[in-house]
Amino acid sequence: MTLADSVLSGSRLALSRLLTQVENGTVEGYTTLNLLFPNTGQAHLIGVTGAPGTGKSSLVNQLALQYRKRTKKRVAVIAVDPTSPFTGGAFLGDRVRMRDLSGDPDVFIRSMASRGSLGGLSHATAAAAQVFDAAGFEIILIETVGAGQAEVDIARLAHTTLVVEAPGLGDDIQAIKAGILEIADILVINKADHDGVENTERALRGMLELAHPVKRVFSHHGKLETLEGASEPDLESWIPPILRTIATEGTGVIELIEHIEQHAHHLRQTGDWQRRERSRLENELNTLIQDALAERFRSGISVECYQQVLAEVVDRKVSPWQAMKVLLNGGCT
Amino acid sequence: MTLADSVLSGSRLALSRLLTQVENGTVEGYTTLNLLFPNTGQAHLIGVTGAPGTGKSSLVNQLALQYRKRTKKRVAVIAVDPTSPFTGGAFLGDRVRMRDLSGDPDVFIRSMASRGSLGGLSHATAAAAQVFDAAGFEIILIETVGAGQAEVDIARLAHTTLVVEAPGLGDDIQAIKAGILEIADILVINKADHDGVENTERALRGMLELAHPVKRVFSHHGKLETLEGASEPDLESWIPPILRTIATEGTGVIELIEHIEQHAHHLRQTGDWQRRERSRLENELNTLIQDALAERFRSGISVECYQQVLAEVVDRKVSPWQAMKVLLNGGCT
Repeated sequence: MTLADSVLSGSRLALSRLLTQVENGTVEGYTTLNLLFPNTGQAHLIGVTGAPGTGKSSLVNQLALQYRKRTKKRVAVIAVDPTSPFTGGAFLGDRVRMRDLSGDPDVFIRSMASRGSLGGLSHATAAAAQVFDAAGFEIILIETVGAGQAEVDIARLAHTTLVVEAPGLGDDIQAIKAGILEIADILVINKADHDGVENTERALRGMLELAHPVKRVFSHHGKLETLEGASEPDLESWIPPILRTIATEGTGVIELIEHIEQHAHHLRQTGDWQRRERSRLENELNTLIQDALAERFRSGISVECYQQVLAEVVDRKVSPWQAMKVLLNGGCT
Repeated sequence: MTLADSVLSGSRLALSRLLTQVENGTVEGYTTLNLLFPNTGQAHLIGVTGAPGTGKSSLVNQLALQYRKRTKKRVAVIAVDPTSPFTGGAFLGDRVRMRDLSGDPDVFIRSMASRGSLGGLSHATAAAAQVFDAAGFEIILIETVGAGQAEVDIARLAHTTLVVEAPGLGDDIQAIKAGILEIADILVINKADHDGVENTERALRGMLELAHPVKRVFSHHGKLETLEGASEPDLESWIPPILRTIATEGTGVIELIEHIEQHAHHLRQTGDWQRRERSRLENELNTLIQDALAERFRSGISVECYQQVLAEVVDRKVSPWQAMKVLLNGGCT
């Protein structure tokens, strides 16, 4: 039985092995993924991002637990830490807390970290999501820590992106995360029993209006407005709701799942689901092409030659444009 | 006389023409720039960025004026508006206000906008800066509006980056600009006679500490601290100062210039000047190579073929990785 067959037949060992292969960017990994790819396209990818201290991991655990209880859907969790060079460590430690989930054969948890593999963490995460998708996991929770460009890239993989905040982290931290807000489909204030939850919600609401100025019109009275004379609300506009949860007690998690499902429904109704899939796949294809072209170029030029040409640029002997022409025409004289 | 010779001999007409060629990415532009490139590397590139309403343009005008008065250095201003598809318009209108500068042959002002030229605005701005550098302009002020990725890219061109704020623009606007703070070498609160200047400074100081957490140690007592037993302050650390100006009255502009000069001195002393030059040129070279590879790839594949392969990916018939292999091996069957 091939690795692909083993994964499709439900072997957790095979799944785990393929994830490692794919994460390391091996030929076996990609070859198997090629065979599995026709089985993908079924899963709902849910990105969960937020600063450390927001209780994001607990929330992801609760989401996995409640998804299992309420929907019976198979759930995968990809926990990504772009700041860690190692898979494991404190971040993996969070997973140990998932006692309620361990032993459930329809839940699979995978921690990933930047190992410097070809194509980087974003590629590896995309590939891992495809593996889970092909293996029949219908809900894939992609958890990322922090708020950098890596987060944004990874969040772009998802159909639905949750941004998690918590009261009392200070306006400063929220400020740094402003860029992240723009990709939020749902905002979650976790630890909603802590002091300052009203302030956090007010701040988020203000930043949300800045991030989605056009949508402000539609939320003016707190609900979708129809254009005068129009018979239907504007299907194109999704106003990110702000929800409160207390993940440690499970409070608000079911309501959060309902909103996630509503968002999926909205995406399918408006055709955004297909558009996101298409643009994600095109983006992945283009990045693979770009990387392969760069790789092919590098393998045709020696490091010494590249360094020599670069040194001539730094010494202002040749312009960057001339240097590019030299390098693209095969290199040094 | 060639265009390059005319530019070197100080012809403003030739300079203007070359800037247009370079902005449009023509062969004449690049060929001339190749000839001029050995003359570059003398100028101090100063990026000035900030949200609309901060009085940034007035500040740039005052900087140009005072640089001329105090240092006699030749000054170029590149005013970049990534949001405008046209060179000119309201943005160019600001330049009309520069009455004090008009007629000075050692000042040159150029507005640039995204014309969709090959390589984009960031390339065009880099090339324009090289033109001015070769033409003997020692101070090049690169003014950008807004706070997007384009700003950050353009700011990376500069040796010294000024981020301009103003009181009363609201914490929200500052929040959106958090990413920009990380590239600031000097923070300027313009319109310092307006209400709320204390709040703005407090907010900036807070965000600065978040953006440069490591440097907080060194500014603990408001000045550079030496490590115990060390005989010299840590040359590597530059703490972005926060300065106040009232550009319309010229207040604080000379002090600002002094800090800009201190920053240049710091860069030269630590070797950061050379490192920034090198990394900027390497980055420019790599981007040129990447663009040329992509262009070469596109010209070898028909749009129909690309769309056909992409459609097969979207239909889950072939994986992105397989599609990349097909396209790199010359295309469709």
